[in-house]
Amino acid sequence: MVDTARFLADLHDLRKIGTYKTGVHRPTYTKEDMESRRWLMDRMTECGLEPEMDGIGNVIGRHKGAGPHLLVGSHIETQNHAGWLDGALGVVSGLALARAGLPVDVIAFADEEGHYGGFIGSRSFIGQLEDAEIDRLANRYHGKPLREALKEAGLEGRPRMRCAEGRYRGFLEMHIEQGTQLESAGLRVGVVTGIVAIRQWKLVFTGMQDHAGGTTMAERRDAGLSAIRLLAEIDRQFPLVCGPRSTWTTGRISLDPGAASIIPGRCEVLFQLRDVDTAIIARMEERLHALVQESNRREKCPCVLEPVSLSTPALCDQALQQALADAAEALAPGAWQRMPSGAGHDAQYIARVMPAAMLFTPSINGISHHWAEDTKEEDLALCVRVLAEGAARYLAA
Amino acid sequence: MVDTARFLADLHDLRKIGTYKTGVHRPTYTKEDMESRRWLMDRMTECGLEPEMDGIGNVIGRHKGAGPHLLVGSHIETQNHAGWLDGALGVVSGLALARAGLPVDVIAFADEEGHYGGFIGSRSFIGQLEDAEIDRLANRYHGKPLREALKEAGLEGRPRMRCAEGRYRGFLEMHIEQGTQLESAGLRVGVVTGIVAIRQWKLVFTGMQDHAGGTTMAERRDAGLSAIRLLAEIDRQFPLVCGPRSTWTTGRISLDPGAASIIPGRCEVLFQLRDVDTAIIARMEERLHALVQESNRREKCPCVLEPVSLSTPALCDQALQQALADAAEALAPGAWQRMPSGAGHDAQYIARVMPAAMLFTPSINGISHHWAEDTKEEDLALCVRVLAEGAARYLAA
Repeated sequence: MVDTARFLADLHDLRKIGTYKTGVHRPTYTKEDMESRRWLMDRMTECGLEPEMDGIGNVIGRHKGAGPHLLVGSHIETQNHAGWLDGALGVVSGLALARAGLPVDVIAFADEEGHYGGFIGSRSFIGQLEDAEIDRLANRYHGKPLREALKEAGLEGRPRMRCAEGRYRGFLEMHIEQGTQLESAGLRVGVVTGIVAIRQWKLVFTGMQDHAGGTTMAERRDAGLSAIRLLAEIDRQFPLVCGPRSTWTTGRISLDPGAASIIPGRCEVLFQLRDVDTAIIARMEERLHALVQESNRREKCPCVLEPVSLSTPALCDQALQQALADAAEALAPGAWQRMPSGAGHDAQYIARVMPAAMLFTPSINGISHHWAEDTKEEDLALCVRVLAEGAARYLAA
Repeated sequence: MVDTARFLADLHDLRKIGTYKTGVHRPTYTKEDMESRRWLMDRMTECGLEPEMDGIGNVIGRHKGAGPHLLVGSHIETQNHAGWLDGALGVVSGLALARAGLPVDVIAFADEEGHYGGFIGSRSFIGQLEDAEIDRLANRYHGKPLREALKEAGLEGRPRMRCAEGRYRGFLEMHIEQGTQLESAGLRVGVVTGIVAIRQWKLVFTGMQDHAGGTTMAERRDAGLSAIRLLAEIDRQFPLVCGPRSTWTTGRISLDPGAASIIPGRCEVLFQLRDVDTAIIARMEERLHALVQESNRREKCPCVLEPVSLSTPALCDQALQQALADAAEALAPGAWQRMPSGAGHDAQYIARVMPAAMLFTPSINGISHHWAEDTKEEDLALCVRVLAEGAARYLAA
C-alpha cells in the first residue's frame, strides 16, 4: 500500500537542502529552511493535497476529499549541523500516507527545534502562541528577533492558521528514537506511550567571592562547594524516589568568577528532571525542594530554586496506540515494544486538542542532534508501513 | 625614625596614577603602570638612591653607601580594578626605610600579578626567567604578546638585571594580609612564617555527550556527574588529612556543551591546594591521587589529573622573623601574631637566593583584588615603623 521506495527517495531529496556532511544544517527561517518548505508544498501538490504556509511558517497540505481525517507530520527544520531524519521523517511519512490514499492532512510545524522558541509552530496551531510572545522572541544563537526573521522569510503580515475543529480524529508523528533502547533490545519499532514532562530549574547559590589562599576554610563561603554538596545529595537520593524510566540531568554549572585562585561567590546550575508519570514527577520535585531546604539550613551559601519551565506529560491516545501496536505486531512480530518518549515533540502540544500518538524508529548508536544521526533504510521503510497500517486500522474502527 | 606622614603621602600620591573608584586600575606595562614606575624612580632619586629600570620592567633604587644592605620592596602594578595598597605598600615602605637612613635598596618587581606571567619580575631578578619563556608569554585577558608589550613600554632590547651576589643580608616585603585573620583577632601586625606552596591541577573527565531525555540513567556517561562525585569525596576526605591552615579550592567547573538538555560529554575542573608545610601538602596530594584512582575504578567517566603548576613553600628566615617579632612586641605589644601567607608573593622567589621575610598589615573585611580594598592609616603607619625597627635590629645583630 505504501510506496516505500518513493518515501525513501523523498527523504534523500529533502536531505539535499542544506546538506552538511552526512546530515543537514537547516535552521528555522533560513534560506535553506524556506526552500525546504517550498519543496514540501510542491510534494503536497503532487500528492493531491492543497498546500498552505502560514504566518509562523507552518506548512499544511489539506486532503481535498471527505473525512474523517488524520493529521500527520512533524517539523522540517533542523538543529545546527544535525541529522537528516529528525523531524523530516515525520513530515515525509505524511506524504507517503497521503500518496497511499489515506485521508490525511500533512503538516510541518515551524521551529520545533527552538531556534527562536521551542514548539512555536505547534503551539500557534493550537492557539497557544500570542503575538506578544512572538514580539519578544529572538534567535538563541545570534539574537535576531523573530519578527525580523519572519519578515526576511516573506511571512510578515500573513495570518496564522488554527487547527480546524472537528476535522481530525487524531494526530500521528513518526520520529527517530534519539536513544539506544530499541537498538540495544534488537527491536525495530517503538509504539510511544507518552511524552515525558520536563521540569527545569536554575539553582542559584550565593556565597562570598574571596582569595583562595588568604581565606581559611572555616571563614569562606564557597558557592560552588554548596552546589556540589547539593548535587551529590540529589545523586544519592533521587534513585530512592524516582520511577523506572525517570531521568534527571545537570547540564550546566557556572562558577563566578570562575578563576583558579578565587573562591566562587556565586554558582548557577541548570537542572532538569523528566518522567511520563505525574505522580513520580511530584515525588522527585518534592524531594528536590526538601534537599534545597535542608541545604539552606546547613550550608553557608543559600540556594534559590528558580523554575525555568515545566511541561505536563502528554499521554498518547489508547486507541491510536493499540492500532499502531496491532500494525506493528502484524508487520514486525516480536520486533517492537511500547516505550515513552524522553524528548519533547510537537505531538505533546497537538495532544491537547486531539488524540495523538507517535511511532519511533531506531537510532543507530542513539546519535541525535549530530550530523552522524542515522537509521537503517529497511527500518525506515518498515516503520512507515506500520504507520500507514495503524492509521488505516484506527480510521476503520 | 620613620617619617610616617611622608610615607602615607607617598601612598596617596601613587594611588592617583590609574585611579579607579577608591582603588587603582594599573595593569602591567600600561601607560599608567609605566608612569608609576617613573614616579617611583623620581622618588628614589629624591631619597638619594640610584634608580634603574631593566628589560622586564623591574625598577630598583640602589643605596649609594656601604653595606651590608637589605633589599626592600614588592610590586607596583595592580590587578584589574583593584586596590591601592596591594604591592604599592611594600614598595613605598622601602622608600620610607631609605628616607629613614637605613642601608636599603628599594625594588618594584614587574608583573607579580601575572597579567603576562606571574612573578616574572622577581623570577627574572633571581635568574629564573629564560628569554624563550618571555617569547611565549601573552596577556591572559587580551592575548597581547609580552614582547609586544615590552616594546610598547620602551623596554625592548634593554638588558635584565640580576640580583647582585653577596650584596644583601636579606629581603623584606610588607604587604596587606588579603584575609581577615588579623582583623578577626583584633590584631594590627602579622609576622609571616612562610608563604604557602600552591599545587594546581586541571581535572578532565571524559563521558559521552547525549540527549538528556532520550538516554536512560543506566546507559548515560555523564562527565559532570563523575566530577561532582569526586569533588564531593574530596570535600569529605581532605579534612582527614589536611593541616590546621590548609586550603583547597575548586575555582572553575566547565561542563561541555553546557546546555540544559544535553548530558555533558566532558567536564574540566580547576582545583588547587595550599599549605606552608611540605609534609601536609604531600598527604593531601597523595589523597587526591587516591581519590582519582578510586573514581576511575568505579565511575563510567575517567578522570585525568593534569598538573597546572606546583610551587614549593617559602619559609621566612628565622632571624629576620625574630627581628620583626621583637620590633612588633616593642611597638605594638600583644597586638601582633605569627601567621603564614596563603597567597603567593615575590618574597617566595627572593627567598631562594637570600633570607627573606614578610610583614602583614590587616585588610579591612579581608577585601582583596577589589577596588574597595583598604587598611586603616594608623595600621599602615604602625607597620612601617615595625618594618624599620625590625630591619635595624636585624642589621645590628
